[in-house]
Amino acid sequence: MAADITKRIAALKAELAELEAQLPPPVSPLAPAAFPDLPLIDGVRFATAEAGVKYKGRTDVMLAEICEGAQVAGVFTRSTTRAAPVLRCEEALAAHTAAPDAGGKFAILVNSGNANAFTGGRGFESVDALRAGVAAALGCEAAQVFTASTGVIGEPLPHSRIETSLNGLVGALDAGHARSAAEAIMTTDTFAKGAKAELELDGAVVKISGFAKGSGMIAPDMATMLVYIFTDAKISQSVLQRMLWLENANTFNCITVDGDTSTSDTLLLVATGRADMPVIKDFADPRARKFRAALQGVMRDLAQQVARDGEGATKLIEVRVTGANADGPAHRIAMSIANSPLVKTAVAGEDPNWGRVVMAVGKAGERADRDRLTIRFGDILVAENGRVAPGYTEEAGAAYMKQDVIVIAVDIGLDSGKATVWTCDLTHQYITINADYRS
Amino acid sequence: MAADITKRIAALKAELAELEAQLPPPVSPLAPAAFPDLPLIDGVRFATAEAGVKYKGRTDVMLAEICEGAQVAGVFTRSTTRAAPVLRCEEALAAHTAAPDAGGKFAILVNSGNANAFTGGRGFESVDALRAGVAAALGCEAAQVFTASTGVIGEPLPHSRIETSLNGLVGALDAGHARSAAEAIMTTDTFAKGAKAELELDGAVVKISGFAKGSGMIAPDMATMLVYIFTDAKISQSVLQRMLWLENANTFNCITVDGDTSTSDTLLLVATGRADMPVIKDFADPRARKFRAALQGVMRDLAQQVARDGEGATKLIEVRVTGANADGPAHRIAMSIANSPLVKTAVAGEDPNWGRVVMAVGKAGERADRDRLTIRFGDILVAENGRVAPGYTEEAGAAYMKQDVIVIAVDIGLDSGKATVWTCDLTHQYITINADYRS
Repeated sequence: MAADITKRIAALKAELAELEAQLPPPVSPLAPAAFPDLPLIDGVRFATAEAGVKYKGRTDVMLAEICEGAQVAGVFTRSTTRAAPVLRCEEALAAHTAAPDAGGKFAILVNSGNANAFTGGRGFESVDALRAGVAAALGCEAAQVFTASTGVIGEPLPHSRIETSLNGLVGALDAGHARSAAEAIMTTDTFAKGAKAELELDGAVVKISGFAKGSGMIAPDMATMLVYIFTDAKISQSVLQRMLWLENANTFNCITVDGDTSTSDTLLLVATGRADMPVIKDFADPRARKFRAALQGVMRDLAQQVARDGEGATKLIEVRVTGANADGPAHRIAMSIANSPLVKTAVAGEDPNWGRVVMAVGKAGERADRDRLTIRFGDILVAENGRVAPGYTEEAGAAYMKQDVIVIAVDIGLDSGKATVWTCDLTHQYITINADYRS
Repeated sequence: MAADITKRIAALKAELAELEAQLPPPVSPLAPAAFPDLPLIDGVRFATAEAGVKYKGRTDVMLAEICEGAQVAGVFTRSTTRAAPVLRCEEALAAHTAAPDAGGKFAILVNSGNANAFTGGRGFESVDALRAGVAAALGCEAAQVFTASTGVIGEPLPHSRIETSLNGLVGALDAGHARSAAEAIMTTDTFAKGAKAELELDGAVVKISGFAKGSGMIAPDMATMLVYIFTDAKISQSVLQRMLWLENANTFNCITVDGDTSTSDTLLLVATGRADMPVIKDFADPRARKFRAALQGVMRDLAQQVARDGEGATKLIEVRVTGANADGPAHRIAMSIANSPLVKTAVAGEDPNWGRVVMAVGKAGERADRDRLTIRFGDILVAENGRVAPGYTEEAGAAYMKQDVIVIAVDIGLDSGKATVWTCDLTHQYITINADYRS
């Protein structure tokens, strides 16, 4: 009897695998309804090409040309095994920071399909060849070309395929090609990610336009994240860099899909300075605060889109921690909850399993007192005073868990430290995506 | 067409779920061939009962009686949300440490099915009632009763069901009941875990017998680990505690299934002193070293059995890190690899995906230099000098990954720090076990 069932199960699984392979990869159920209509940013033009780095029948290279006089800020993965393009970007940014008004155009070149990571000395040869190629085709300094590569690790980048497409890319540059740029840098993202903002500074309308890729993956790619944000605002490099660093801490550093850190994460913010406004060169300038708020909106939107496209995601989870003894501990507690496989599988199963939230607070290594914890799912009070809340019912919890966006709110009850992070649930599809043999 | 496929897939999945529910939970393919024939330990007797705490038709309570004059050592979860039984055990151990020769019998009472965690003041009431009950039934001090509870979190422990079985338990005590004791404390473990050792000290044969539960789980239980080890050796409490602490660092603290820390982890080591030998009261005593080596063998065996029974496990993974700048960093790098969902899913898919190992080294936050890393799968040299090894082939790597036990060896190339940890792969079965709605 059991043997019959086992045999039938094997047959069903074989048929399932065959059928599922016939379907196109599904778009995340958490994807926004549409890609936003990104504004043109004066001083920035994009082009894309099919270089055939790895994928066939789709674009896989993106070139952005940035006008003379622009300022560039950046943050990069802190991995100790980061890839050659990241190391070269760090050098380029350091040189730009040291002489922000040296002049000359900038360029960004990104390929998908190959991460050019752990490729030894050949990795740098590829980056240097591409920077020289872009410089020649575009008429800029090679030192002002930022590159990124995302995809498989450990395979040499066939950079000559990209080199042959450079002249065509330069000929196709257009300010309106932001969306196709966002598409060209996707790996196994299930949707392209864009976000925008407009604000008024000194009477001038200033625009922000950004796009990102991330959290889609085919073995053996990392959950690589690349983000490019452009604005026509006129802001000094040091102020731009400081704003980016601060808002990165509030946005992209507040998302996690699986706790695994890419070798290639790159976030660049470009300000062309073409807006009709006096330059912002002081962080205390009230216009800096206004710009920063708009920038935060764009970055948070993109960061949440990355979490929404987390591998296999069916739920977006927002973890809000308050009442910790400081903001840092609050962030670490929130990440402990957001990275807990037990919390994430419970959400996937629509199980209001608050005991696992207690567990994740307890393992975070931060100050916490069991008897002061308050846990809420959305507005539903679940637990307080070291035990389940008197009015809580499993039915109310279970009904709440049916939603697409789940808010887990934990008050530690000690002080005023707080943090919010975003993640997604952990589903069978995550295993399917990542346990498949690469081919 | 796609709609037809989608419909058929849904039908297949429904049938699969129905059939799988009819099968008994499978025993881990990594289980040892048999439970070992545990030696009798003079001075220790066990009994089990079906108290019906949660499970029906199986034992769920275990009582161990320990003779007067024994010494007890223990380590517990460091979770800040640890359960009431753990907190009471810590008090009992502190009192025993302060007066190790106070006399009187000891007892250990364990129930499965309910963790008595996050149950507020009622949690302590339950523990105190059970300790008083055991003390009365057995004729010992309540302060010398160690309890543990493992299972669902947040539900009050129905301790009266256990209380009514106490007199029966005392009547059934027998030195030969270690195996049934190991079975009674299981939750969703797929096999009972035992290990033993014998050694000669001063001409006397000294025996060690231990059992453990852990890493099996049904929502919402934690990956709770309980371990009880008994010996007839004569060892002072301070030496016993120091040995346990050191070997715990080398064994149980070197395993991980999902990086989630239980609220209930408890490890007790009991030395009855009934062996015919002079007491070991100095850690520098050469006999202490000999005993410690045997103890390490038992603890490592049990620890690996826990990893082998990790939820959904199909592969045991040994991660060996050498060449780090110290042992602590080596351990943290090894744990970064062992806890990486991307590494664990790659092993599940039998994918020799060394790029993910590079990634996990890079994210560990410890000193590492990409170009000095050496990575091996078993004896196969995979990568060195910052790139794939010249002689490495995917075929060799893929063939190696078919094995049940996978060794991932990483040399950091900096200094002599080293660590070894064990984990299991991350499979669909892990998601199935943990995303099911608790009922």
